Amino acid sequence: MTPPVDVSRLIARLDALGRIGALAGGGVSRPALTPADGAGRALVVGWMRDLGLEPVVDRIGNVFATRPGAVPGPSVMIGSHIDTVATGGLYDGNLGVLAGLELIAALNDAGIVTERPVTVAVFTNEEGARFQPDMLGSLVHVGGLDLAAALDTVAVDGARLGDELEAIGWAGEAPIGGVAAAAYLEYHIEQGPVLEAEGIEIGVVEGVQGISWTEVTLAGRASHAGCTPMRLRRDAGLAAARIATGVAEIARDIGGDMVGTVGSLRLRPDLVNVVAESAVMTVDLRHPVEATLAEAERRLAGLIARVAAEETVAASTRVLARFAPVAFDRDLVGRVEATAAALGFGHRRMPSGAGHDAQMLARVCPAAMVFVPSADGLSHNTREFTAAADIERGLRVLASLALDLAGRVGDVPRAEEIRG
Amino acid sequence: MTPPVDVSRLIARLDALGRIGALAGGGVSRPALTPADGAGRALVVGWMRDLGLEPVVDRIGNVFATRPGAVPGPSVMIGSHIDTVATGGLYDGNLGVLAGLELIAALNDAGIVTERPVTVAVFTNEEGARFQPDMLGSLVHVGGLDLAAALDTVAVDGARLGDELEAIGWAGEAPIGGVAAAAYLEYHIEQGPVLEAEGIEIGVVEGVQGISWTEVTLAGRASHAGCTPMRLRRDAGLAAARIATGVAEIARDIGGDMVGTVGSLRLRPDLVNVVAESAVMTVDLRHPVEATLAEAERRLAGLIARVAAEETVAASTRVLARFAPVAFDRDLVGRVEATAAALGFGHRRMPSGAGHDAQMLARVCPAAMVFVPSADGLSHNTREFTAAADIERGLRVLASLALDLAGRVGDVPRAEEIRG
Repeated sequence: MTPPVDVSRLIARLDALGRIGALAGGGVSRPALTPADGAGRALVVGWMRDLGLEPVVDRIGNVFATRPGAVPGPSVMIGSHIDTVATGGLYDGNLGVLAGLELIAALNDAGIVTERPVTVAVFTNEEGARFQPDMLGSLVHVGGLDLAAALDTVAVDGARLGDELEAIGWAGEAPIGGVAAAAYLEYHIEQGPVLEAEGIEIGVVEGVQGISWTEVTLAGRASHAGCTPMRLRRDAGLAAARIATGVAEIARDIGGDMVGTVGSLRLRPDLVNVVAESAVMTVDLRHPVEATLAEAERRLAGLIARVAAEETVAASTRVLARFAPVAFDRDLVGRVEATAAALGFGHRRMPSGAGHDAQMLARVCPAAMVFVPSADGLSHNTREFTAAADIERGLRVLASLALDLAGRVGDVPRAEEIRG
Repeated sequence: MTPPVDVSRLIARLDALGRIGALAGGGVSRPALTPADGAGRALVVGWMRDLGLEPVVDRIGNVFATRPGAVPGPSVMIGSHIDTVATGGLYDGNLGVLAGLELIAALNDAGIVTERPVTVAVFTNEEGARFQPDMLGSLVHVGGLDLAAALDTVAVDGARLGDELEAIGWAGEAPIGGVAAAAYLEYHIEQGPVLEAEGIEIGVVEGVQGISWTEVTLAGRASHAGCTPMRLRRDAGLAAARIATGVAEIARDIGGDMVGTVGSLRLRPDLVNVVAESAVMTVDLRHPVEATLAEAERRLAGLIARVAAEETVAASTRVLARFAPVAFDRDLVGRVEATAAALGFGHRRMPSGAGHDAQMLARVCPAAMVFVPSADGLSHNTREFTAAADIERGLRVLASLALDLAGRVGDVPRAEEIRG
């Protein structure tokens, strides 16, 4: 059965959370561990308490709020994140967390007692827009990254993660990994154009593309743009531009699901009449098959070496993040599919193009994801949007499957019944 | 004859001026109309007063200090600038101004009376690193740009030129163009590698390359780097990289003296996992022949249109600066060459790859330039350097020719002679 979820209540919470870090003209800027992130956390944790939950915060700032079950033990965990990129939207991450709260609200409203506990989780720094790697909180939670190393992570703006976590007041005391999950569900917008283009309502996510992030630093020589013949230049900016162009060529040449992006590119001194002395750029490569992703990485390394030699610049690289493709639990993916079918929603299996906390949780328990369409395929964009009808369908799939997994053992007596 | 110039005194002033806006590790940052520029002006104007001159400041902040001649009338003007790029050196511009002061000092020391006045000029915002166009002060001086428009120029950092000029206290009251020149000489480092590579001591500058600066703005669509297939992207960053790569290809294809540079390139939002929504870049094209420069501009326009269409981004362009090639006065260039020969210095005729205030003055009087070698061809670079022996040779060419042009009519009685 579907618990009596209320999509308008979920959307009201999405809107309220979206006002924290709201950008003029729309969209949200709430990068991880900024004061806006802290304010967003306070709002969400307040809602958790209002729902009768007692949130615990672990030492990396992950928040877990558990509704007890009839039998103590591992939870059915529903989670995601509330940090955003610098120019993000209302839905990415927030939808998954607040759908979890809506499920709790519905269980409370209906007085349903579950066998297993149900936990809503908020993971720290999923986006990786400020601190890399992304999915850092869930990675620490599953033991994939040492707490001390995570706290020492330095932001693109120079801040240390541990200091920023303290500064916004969200360095908790709960031990890492203290909340165990029997299963993990994450409800998310697709962030791509496929569901909308095909007119399909629910995406049944089979796994996550492998992700490879590389920072490339190019060191050339600053010189006068008017007096330095082309043949005598060591132009770090030109080398960066050639690598950026080459990344797109690699992705287009491999084809299929391969994507390659240079999203950040900075020149120094960045002046019209000075040949750039240095350039720092990022390369984001993704593919669902490990061998293909590795092939793209090999081609990137060759591209960088070739361009650096031809432009007489020194190149160095640093891995910012590297995650192999992840396949979700087959049985759980099958149950997502069956639930969508039982509710009468059009659905298709698909990979996720983005990384998600679910891929970290998949290391320690069965995990799966539910996708709903993104208007125009936009995400990491202030115009990110998913219609209420789509949100409701995904919410019903999530809530139905979560209740099935948690097991309904009876109803809590309602106050009016007790009084009656 | 050569007035008794003292290169060590000139170098001491270069070093002292270089301490204003000095960068840790070497080099100077004194962009136009910053407080550092104001402090540099104060130092130079103090030296002018120490030499008995009475500097006047015009309404765009140009400074003119005139040593009277026996006959009133147009001056022999020696000028350049003291603003620098953000990461510049001690010599670019400063050498020309301070060599002018050294000439005045030598004339004073030797008690020489000239027929014509000798004026040392400091022009505002030659670099164009902060306010565009470059050579703005000399352009206004010769009537090529309206004062009001120049004062309304907005910096890359958003500041208005007139406000910044007021803020640093250098908005003068002298009318524009009030100081007339019979001839203009500018002594400058080459800023390129040619003299050093050929072992030649003095560059006799025949003219200045034409300069074309274009700002290109590309508007695409921000989208998720993992979920947006390559074919559905509108990647402003990729378009910018392709244009930057294409600019170098145009310059290399035209060959010879053609240079093309993308020195500034900025992406928004500039994040690793977001396809860039917009990019703003500059293109600097230079060539000594107008028809070739125009051909490069045509190819650039075609490149931008082709890339914009292929990457489905909107492109717009804005001319930041456009100066046709300038040929200096033949007779005056011949006198520079003859002076270098008479002093026994190896010399060659050459174009200037950079723009200089001399090209503006060439609109209103005979103008010419003297170049000396730049170590490693570096300029607009904190490691910019010219050896003392090279500086002295250029100084002697400048001083000899200036005195010839001004005409020696006699000696001022020295104090000790009067007393004696």
